[in-house]
Amino acid sequence: MIRFEALTVFPEMFEPYLSSSIMGRARARGIFSFEAHDLRDWTHDRHRTVDDAPFGGGQGMLMKCAPFFEALRDLSRADLPHPHVVFFSPSGVRYDQSVAQRLAREERVLLVCGRYEGIDERALELADETISMGDYVLTGGELAALAVIDSCVRLLPGALGDEMSALDESFSDGLLEYAQYTRPADFEGRQVPEVLLSGNHAAIAAWRRKNSVERTARWRPDLLESAGLTEDEWALARCVMEQEEGRR
Amino acid sequence: MIRFEALTVFPEMFEPYLSSSIMGRARARGIFSFEAHDLRDWTHDRHRTVDDAPFGGGQGMLMKCAPFFEALRDLSRADLPHPHVVFFSPSGVRYDQSVAQRLAREERVLLVCGRYEGIDERALELADETISMGDYVLTGGELAALAVIDSCVRLLPGALGDEMSALDESFSDGLLEYAQYTRPADFEGRQVPEVLLSGNHAAIAAWRRKNSVERTARWRPDLLESAGLTEDEWALARCVMEQEEGRR
Repeated sequence: MIRFEALTVFPEMFEPYLSSSIMGRARARGIFSFEAHDLRDWTHDRHRTVDDAPFGGGQGMLMKCAPFFEALRDLSRADLPHPHVVFFSPSGVRYDQSVAQRLAREERVLLVCGRYEGIDERALELADETISMGDYVLTGGELAALAVIDSCVRLLPGALGDEMSALDESFSDGLLEYAQYTRPADFEGRQVPEVLLSGNHAAIAAWRRKNSVERTARWRPDLLESAGLTEDEWALARCVMEQEEGRR
Repeated sequence: MIRFEALTVFPEMFEPYLSSSIMGRARARGIFSFEAHDLRDWTHDRHRTVDDAPFGGGQGMLMKCAPFFEALRDLSRADLPHPHVVFFSPSGVRYDQSVAQRLAREERVLLVCGRYEGIDERALELADETISMGDYVLTGGELAALAVIDSCVRLLPGALGDEMSALDESFSDGLLEYAQYTRPADFEGRQVPEVLLSGNHAAIAAWRRKNSVERTARWRPDLLESAGLTEDEWALARCVMEQEEGRR
């Protein structure tokens, strides 16, 4: 069982998400555990202060480094596996499915959630890894931590109920997933591609692979290089990319 | 006031986050409103079914398109601004700070949250825009929707309390933010850079700009091209990039 923990000034932000739906069921089945630690437990003043003004001036408040150092000392207890400590920062490694797969193999992951204008730079030496969720700014790391937990847990055997379902989706073979359809076959004149109704499994598999290649070439050509395409698939991809080029 | 709405099978997942901390205060002050719509309200069977097996076979369940079409018809009511409809998909436009800035100027944003193995492709025609939060897979769109709301709302005047604080941060000038420090000046031997203690505002501003350029060159050289560097800053950036190159 993988242990996820968060170090945060909003420990109550995690439970609602992690106790409902797929995450709630996976947790109840012992596929992962979660514990939120209140960073304020490692302060020593009456107001449990975690922030202070930045040296050199500037807007807003920064998180002090001392509570992080103290928390990490206490949380690295000998009776538990040493935590893999993750900080969030736009300067970090871009989070993607391969990072999720790697983190999902850890025993214990501690997600450190910043707030305010940032964290005193000195605390960053505590990080085993710094992750960026993308080139946008959130009010805090809590949503990022939830996204990491969700994307890792769903990769673990049994988490989705149906053990196979994390295998056949976008990024799992380096391509975007093919278009999918369910009933009705005709929705107000919008038809499902006929081959999908044919029962011909080989033809369906071929259509899906072709559709994945086309969609990836149209929307995410950057993924093609490492997707292991055949020569015919490359020809198709190049044709789609030329069409896209012409459309711009 | 901007209206955010979500169309979801887990309407209860949003309130805990959007009623606490900065989001809760911004909402209480009327900077944004939020309403979650339960997709199951647009089903017509006793079990309020929103999913069905994919045509052509495959693992898991897909979300049916009909409830989305019906919901969008009802929610595009004449007495409200027409919603800007956002779907989430790995094939979409990569979400970043410029997308956040653009969405924050809308009057009404409807965030459509998928679950299960995906959504019947035909529903995608309802999207004004399809957004990707990154190359990873979540169990549903709810966390993505929360990240969009959070990153947009914090850009709105008054949301952060201190009106200036969203201006001086990563991506706002095309660079990563400079390192920041708060008290103590010496934490167990870890010193704050002396210039930040000097009170010399020009020297501090110069140090911060240089530090931003260095950090961006080290960790996100892809951002430099559009950051409007001076010739001296380019020389510094190239020097850092060569050092990084040598380290690999």
